[in-house]
Amino acid sequence: MTQLNTTSHLILTGDRPTGPLHLGHYVGSLRQRVALQHQHPQYILIADLQGLTDNGSQPEKVVNNILEVMADYLAVGIRPDLSTICLQSALPALAELTMLYMNIVTVSRVERNPTVKNEILQKGFSRSLPTGFLVYPISQAADITAFGADRVPVGDDQLPMIEQTNEIVHKMNALTGEQTLRRCEAVLSPMGRLPGVDGNAKMSKSLGNALSLSASEVEIHRAVSDMFTDPGHLRISDPGKIEGNVVFTWLDAFHPDTDKVREMKAHYQRGGLGDRVCKNTLEECLQTLLAPIRERRRALINDKETLLGILKQGSEQAHELTQKTLAIVKKGLGLPVMF
Amino acid sequence: MTQLNTTSHLILTGDRPTGPLHLGHYVGSLRQRVALQHQHPQYILIADLQGLTDNGSQPEKVVNNILEVMADYLAVGIRPDLSTICLQSALPALAELTMLYMNIVTVSRVERNPTVKNEILQKGFSRSLPTGFLVYPISQAADITAFGADRVPVGDDQLPMIEQTNEIVHKMNALTGEQTLRRCEAVLSPMGRLPGVDGNAKMSKSLGNALSLSASEVEIHRAVSDMFTDPGHLRISDPGKIEGNVVFTWLDAFHPDTDKVREMKAHYQRGGLGDRVCKNTLEECLQTLLAPIRERRRALINDKETLLGILKQGSEQAHELTQKTLAIVKKGLGLPVMF
Repeated sequence: MTQLNTTSHLILTGDRPTGPLHLGHYVGSLRQRVALQHQHPQYILIADLQGLTDNGSQPEKVVNNILEVMADYLAVGIRPDLSTICLQSALPALAELTMLYMNIVTVSRVERNPTVKNEILQKGFSRSLPTGFLVYPISQAADITAFGADRVPVGDDQLPMIEQTNEIVHKMNALTGEQTLRRCEAVLSPMGRLPGVDGNAKMSKSLGNALSLSASEVEIHRAVSDMFTDPGHLRISDPGKIEGNVVFTWLDAFHPDTDKVREMKAHYQRGGLGDRVCKNTLEECLQTLLAPIRERRRALINDKETLLGILKQGSEQAHELTQKTLAIVKKGLGLPVMF
Repeated sequence: MTQLNTTSHLILTGDRPTGPLHLGHYVGSLRQRVALQHQHPQYILIADLQGLTDNGSQPEKVVNNILEVMADYLAVGIRPDLSTICLQSALPALAELTMLYMNIVTVSRVERNPTVKNEILQKGFSRSLPTGFLVYPISQAADITAFGADRVPVGDDQLPMIEQTNEIVHKMNALTGEQTLRRCEAVLSPMGRLPGVDGNAKMSKSLGNALSLSASEVEIHRAVSDMFTDPGHLRISDPGKIEGNVVFTWLDAFHPDTDKVREMKAHYQRGGLGDRVCKNTLEECLQTLLAPIRERRRALINDKETLLGILKQGSEQAHELTQKTLAIVKKGLGLPVMF
């Protein structure tokens, strides 16, 4: 966890393309990337290989979403001239580094990774755990180090991944020379995780509590109408709670006028402010935010050739960079670099 | 297990470069490759990545032996114009296919692989098992299928590897189309495993019971002198046993005159044939076999540039072939093939 305040940093971030992105991604990460791209070199990896680690038997769930995620990126304001968007499966160095790192990480070490442990439980794997899923922290370490990223924006649930990456950096550097791989630090989002419409701490498409970046006016209206507030706030005149009240959490996340939100909170807490008024304010703010994103997204997704062109160009740049790291690692290990 | 009798087969074979090759490799595999290269396209993979799966912390043990193994190959008569010798770490498609296959193979399936189970025991891994070692059967399946090999010469301890490869072929073809990957069959060596000088069923450098292909005259003499015979054969006139008698197993493996060996066995069994005479016959035959191999090997190992040039050329050919397979698999899964 650190501040980004020098100019020499390199940022790697990305997403598993298992569905179009939603407002949770926007608040937790996309918005930050749009800002960061003006300050530091930033690579954005569409992690299709990682998406396949728990979708090995339904690859269409991943491959059909690659360009959807591309469209999301560009629609929210990620600029290909400032950020390099690239595709994981197009970068052989990432697979090759994973193979090399797998030899210095024990099975018991990856099994001990808290993030992996939790996800195994959540996804209901037990004996049917794919090997690819077990080793994905190693693959993620390959991604981060291949780009030479020293700043990795993540959620706090991903901190064990950064720890494991730095362990690999330490071991590989001991084998190949201290300057081979760069240590990395997590950059935590200033805003916590955005709760789902229903109040669940995790927003996800599969839980049905997400609002996608391409949501229509009607969908936005319906989501806000259905939004979980304070179940004890029965009459407008009653004092209401703002803790766990999704409308206020979302107002904090999206409303540009923080003074106004502070006033509304105070009013709601002392009683006299109805849920409907608060929801209208939130809806107006979301409609304003999402209308241009939806419009841009619609145009973008209809021009797949351009999206693929941008992805190809970014992947070529990323290929050049990651091949350099691979060559340094191979040379460090004494492996011939033949072509 | 099958006979090689049509012209459309493609053979993949190879070695982990963890030491110079010895007579066990010669009898079990190298001799067969020299014959097969005249009959079928044959790729020989120097499996440095696989060598690293249990040498992750001592890569020099692997990388220093790549050209040693190359020299062994050429010295025994493998011809680069007939066989394609290539380096595993130079072929990104092998790592990329491994990553894709890992998603359709469960951890419990690789843990159940009898070959891996045995090796884990033998090598004394327990909690310290490297992830790369656990998944090496998947990496081997990537090797075999990337080359489109349908015939794989292996020892009988490797049959579970072939079974696992065909399971992967079956699953991937179900996902990507029936013609994507080729099924393979094991080709068992006509000669069983050559026992060590000491009578141990397994010959290995680490057990100190091996005779390397570069053995000097003196080393050959000493190995044969020390060779385990029939401990009950105390006087020349006593009847001797040939079962478990390493001298006769080696005579079977190396002596060109099978009639003569049959006569010697009968003589030994009825009594009157001394160990010394048998050992002299074996030594003469080994000196004759190994003298030219040793000479050629000495010249080869002094010209590393040529060895590396041959390896590079073979790897380039193999790269082209394996990239084609990777592209077919990726297209079958729906992944973009961008460059």
